[in-house]
Parts: sequence; structure tokens; C-alpha cells
Amino acid sequence: MSAEAVSVKMKDRSSQPSLDPILSLTAPSMEAVNAVILDRMQSEIPLIPALAGHLISGGGKRMRPMLTLAGAELVGYKGNHHHKLAAAVEFLHTATLLHDDVVDGSETRRGKEAANMIYGNPATVLVGDFLFARAFELMVDADNLRALKVLSDASVIIAQGEVDQLTAQRKIETSEEHYLHIIGAKTAALFSAASRISAVIADCPPEQEKALDDYGRYLGIAFQLVDDAIDYDSERAEMGKDQGDDFREGKMTLPVILAYEKGTSEERKFWQEAIAGFRTEDEDLAHAVQLINRHGTIAATRERALEFADKACDALSIFPDSKARAAMVEAAQFAVSRLY
Amino acid sequence: MSAEAVSVKMKDRSSQPSLDPILSLTAPSMEAVNAVILDRMQSEIPLIPALAGHLISGGGKRMRPMLTLAGAELVGYKGNHHHKLAAAVEFLHTATLLHDDVVDGSETRRGKEAANMIYGNPATVLVGDFLFARAFELMVDADNLRALKVLSDASVIIAQGEVDQLTAQRKIETSEEHYLHIIGAKTAALFSAASRISAVIADCPPEQEKALDDYGRYLGIAFQLVDDAIDYDSERAEMGKDQGDDFREGKMTLPVILAYEKGTSEERKFWQEAIAGFRTEDEDLAHAVQLINRHGTIAATRERALEFADKACDALSIFPDSKARAAMVEAAQFAVSRLY
Repeated sequence: MSAEAVSVKMKDRSSQPSLDPILSLTAPSMEAVNAVILDRMQSEIPLIPALAGHLISGGGKRMRPMLTLAGAELVGYKGNHHHKLAAAVEFLHTATLLHDDVVDGSETRRGKEAANMIYGNPATVLVGDFLFARAFELMVDADNLRALKVLSDASVIIAQGEVDQLTAQRKIETSEEHYLHIIGAKTAALFSAASRISAVIADCPPEQEKALDDYGRYLGIAFQLVDDAIDYDSERAEMGKDQGDDFREGKMTLPVILAYEKGTSEERKFWQEAIAGFRTEDEDLAHAVQLINRHGTIAATRERALEFADKACDALSIFPDSKARAAMVEAAQFAVSRLY
Repeated sequence: MSAEAVSVKMKDRSSQPSLDPILSLTAPSMEAVNAVILDRMQSEIPLIPALAGHLISGGGKRMRPMLTLAGAELVGYKGNHHHKLAAAVEFLHTATLLHDDVVDGSETRRGKEAANMIYGNPATVLVGDFLFARAFELMVDADNLRALKVLSDASVIIAQGEVDQLTAQRKIETSEEHYLHIIGAKTAALFSAASRISAVIADCPPEQEKALDDYGRYLGIAFQLVDDAIDYDSERAEMGKDQGDDFREGKMTLPVILAYEKGTSEERKFWQEAIAGFRTEDEDLAHAVQLINRHGTIAATRERALEFADKACDALSIFPDSKARAAMVEAAQFAVSRLY
């Protein structure tokens, strides 16, 4: 496969991008992955499939395993080990969500009551551990030590990112650089590993492995930037995400970091109190949204997301044009379009 | 190595057994393991080594990695992959302890304030996840897919055992069989995997692998039985274990299961209320200890532990006599002697 420079910039598109192409590209293999997920979340202990199933069947987009499957299409992988690896990726993600919800005391997830609210923190922690262990069992079954290395390294980085985020919480002085480092770890590491492993199991040359790793990482950062902007976006309320959660939890995300940077001293005083946890009422959130709108930091965050989505698309330019590449490019465009 | 029937029964010993032989057998390689542990618990996020180090340097016996090292001596393993695997085993164990303490709301661990009390539940959950991920990273480094399979399967079984224990909590009707199933999963699975992997990396014949697996499993059950008896033993208070924890948490352990079985209807009423959580005062614990003494269920639990320790020793009889075998036999005898 020779390098072929194709411009796949966001700005080249005018129509509304969609996940449909990547969904239909990966539909047949996703069915196999879903079968693995359903099979391997079972256990002789009934609470495990009940709790895990509450979240797993709760309507996630399966973005991360989709990256593994799309990558396998892109590089023309012929085996079937990607089904187990993609299921492992989804289990890792699900385990992280369960523990996140315990850590944050979340009340809802994906528009439903969060598992910790129904089953309690102890069961949610332990079923998270079960899914984490199952993920590694699946990786071992997939029989590729290099893919295992990519995913176990990613798991370490994710856990570090989660702790990093926890220690940065309620700290108004968190810099944009630190924030990007956190989301690079807690979110983008799994996106990049999920994408990369398709090239690993297909024995692709290193530059293709790196290209898929880059694609996943930049896409993950774009996704998280958009998610963090949506939390303050007055124009829309995305299903399944409680608006204002980050605000009430004192999480420093880019819209806040930029608004604080640009704020007057009176505004800065508000942010300091809010992030420290002394302003958590609905009227405080409304005021936060007002300040964010005043300084246009949602738009600025979207601009940053666009840059990362562009980089994700650019990474794919070493691959010749194909249905898979086009679908992956449009997925990156879609990621940002959620904020249009 | 031919099979050689050697009686290694507990009853053949008269002097007080000790961990000293296994400690000195494994001392040089444990130094290497401790170096790996210290190196791999580091992170750019300072909270991680602080929290992990609080527990890891808190004076555990390192029983599980010791089994890997002793097994390696027993089978004459010549490489050095067992250092990383033994460190991984200790990380898996430490991650489980951190999550256990969150789940149980423990106040102390190994005679010190528990990590969750100092650093809070969120950080303790996430640092547990970090250690779990690090464990798998270390296993990948050790470069043996079969050992990885043994340990990832064990991790799944441990997590299932933890959930099983949680759902059995405060249920007076838990049977002895169910209890043995729980401790076989939550405790003995890691003992057996830790012991077995030494034979795996040394490419031993299947019967030696099985013998080491059996040794670890039976030893693990004996250990847990003794731990559970110590929680009600009026004669002694073991450092680092809060007496009466199981009682207050409504955990059904063998001394209680047997006392309930043998109890009068009045005694059964007491146990029902206590395990349901309505009798958690010091005087209730004193009454529970009284009932347990009346029916001799500590002694009965010790008898069961002795049987399992005997089976552990018997499993080693396929190996010729050696310093390593004698040390492992004495370790099994020591496990039960903690209750003498």
C-alpha cells in the first residue's frame, strides 16, 4: 500500500456528517462482537450479568470496538481475532464507566439510572473488576501478545489518567496543557489502542500501525473535547448526559479553562468558588453558561476539536482511498458535528 | 523427576512450624521481586505511589509471590521471568485488597489505617485499577501467554468470588458448601495460580503443573479458614486483623455456619439477627464468641483447615525430597499453626 496524499480536511465537507457509513461498514462484524460480549458477560453469579447488562445493553454507541473493526476493514485483515479484541475493548470501557460512576456518585448514565444507584457502590466496583478481568481473558484468547501489550499499556495509562483527573478536580489552576494530558490518557489512550490493534493483528508495517494509533488518539481527544463542551452547551441537551455534571463535580474542562483565562476578576472569583464546590445551584450553572457564552469558549473548544479531527483524518492519508477510509474520516467529522 | 510417595502429613510434626524455611529459600529472588514492585508502582501521578505504597510497604507477608518463587525453586526453573510474574501476583492481590476495603468500608488493614480512610474511596478504587492494569502489563513483559492465561482466568474467578461473597453477605442460610466455593474463588484461585505459573514458565510436565496448582489451592483454603476462625478466636488477636469484622459485616464464615447448624432455636434466633445486622455491639460479639466456644466450631474449623493443609502437602509428594519441598510443606503447616 503506497502513501497517497488525500486531503480529508473537515472544511472540505459541507453536508452533515454521519456515523452511518462506519456503522454499516462494521455491522456484520459488530454482530459477532456483540455475540462475544453477551457470551462473556455471563457468570454463575446472577448479579454479574444483571449489573453488567444494565450498562452494556443500555445503548452505548460501541465507538471503541467499532474502531477496531473499521481498522480491520481498512487494512484488509482476514482472520477473526478482532472480534474478541473488540469485545475486550468494550469490556475495558464498560469497567471504566462503572468505576467512574462510583467515583463521581453519578445518578444517571446513558439516559438511565446509573448501575451504582440501583445495585450500590460495592457491587458496581466488583462487577467492574470482573469485566476488567474478562477483558484480559478475552485478549489472551485472541492469542496475540503484541495486541495484549498495546491494550495492557493503554489500561495503565487510562488508570493514571483517571487518578490525574481526580487530583485535578476542584483545582481552578488546571492548565489547558494539563487538561489535554488528562483526556489524552483517560479517553484517547483506549481510542488509539482500539484502532491500533487492528494493524497489529494484521501484521501491518509500523507506519500503518502508527497511522491507526494516531487516528484513534486524535479522534478520542476530539470526542472528549466535544463531550466536555456539550456539558455547557445551552443550545442542546444530549441524551444520556446530564448537563452541568462536570460543573457540579468541579471538573476543569476546556470551556471553563478558557472562560477563566479570559474572565474579569469578578468572573474569576465566581469560577474559583464554583470549581471549589461552593456554587452548585441551577442558577450558578446558568451563570456559568452565560460567562462561557460571553467569551465564546464553546466555539473555541469546537475549534480545537476540529483541529484534532483534522489530524485524525490526515493520519489516514497514508492509506489508499477506500470505503473503510471514507467511513472513518466521516466518523471523525461526525464527532465534532455533534456540537453544530 | 519420578513420583516418590513421601508422607508429609501435619500430624507427623511435633515442633512449632515456621515460615522461616520458605522465607530464606525465597529471600534472594524476593529481593528481585521487591525491586520490580517498587519500580512498577511508580507513576507520574504522585497519588499513585503514595496510596499504593501505603499498603504495599505495610508489612504484608507476600505469601502469594512467595509461592511463585518457591515453586520455581522446587522445579529448578533457571530463567528470571518469575520475578515479574510474582510482582504481578502481588499487584493483583493488592488491587483486590484496596477494592475490598472500599467495599467493606474497612477502617484498618495490616494494623494501620486503611487506604480508603486516608485517601478516600474514589482514589482507592482508581489506584486499585492502576495496580490491576500494571499487573497485566508485567505479565505481558514476562512474555508467556500460558502464564497469562492462568492468571487472567484466576482474575475472573477472584472477581466472581468477590461478587458471590457480597451477595451471600447477611444471608444466614449460606451453606458450608457455598462458603467453601466462595473462598475457593476469592482466595484460593490466586494461591493456586501463583503456585502453578512457576511450573508453566519452567515448561514442566502437566502432572507437576497440576500438583503445584493443587498445593496452592488447598493451601489457600487452609489459610482462609484459619483467617476466618481467628476473627472469632478469643485466645488471640492477630496483628492487623480487627477481630469481629466478619461478624459486624454479616459475613457467613465456617465458625458461624457450624455454630448456627448446632445451635438451639434461641441461639439460631441470635445468629439470624446478628447476621442480618441488628446485633453489632461489643456485647453481641462477645455472645457470638461464647456460642462458638460452646459448640467448639473454632476447633472444627481448624480441623477442616488441617485437612486442606494435608492435601496441599500430599500434592507435593510427586516431587522428590528437597529443601524447597520441605519449606513448602512447612509453610502449609504454619498456615494452620496460627490457630494453635
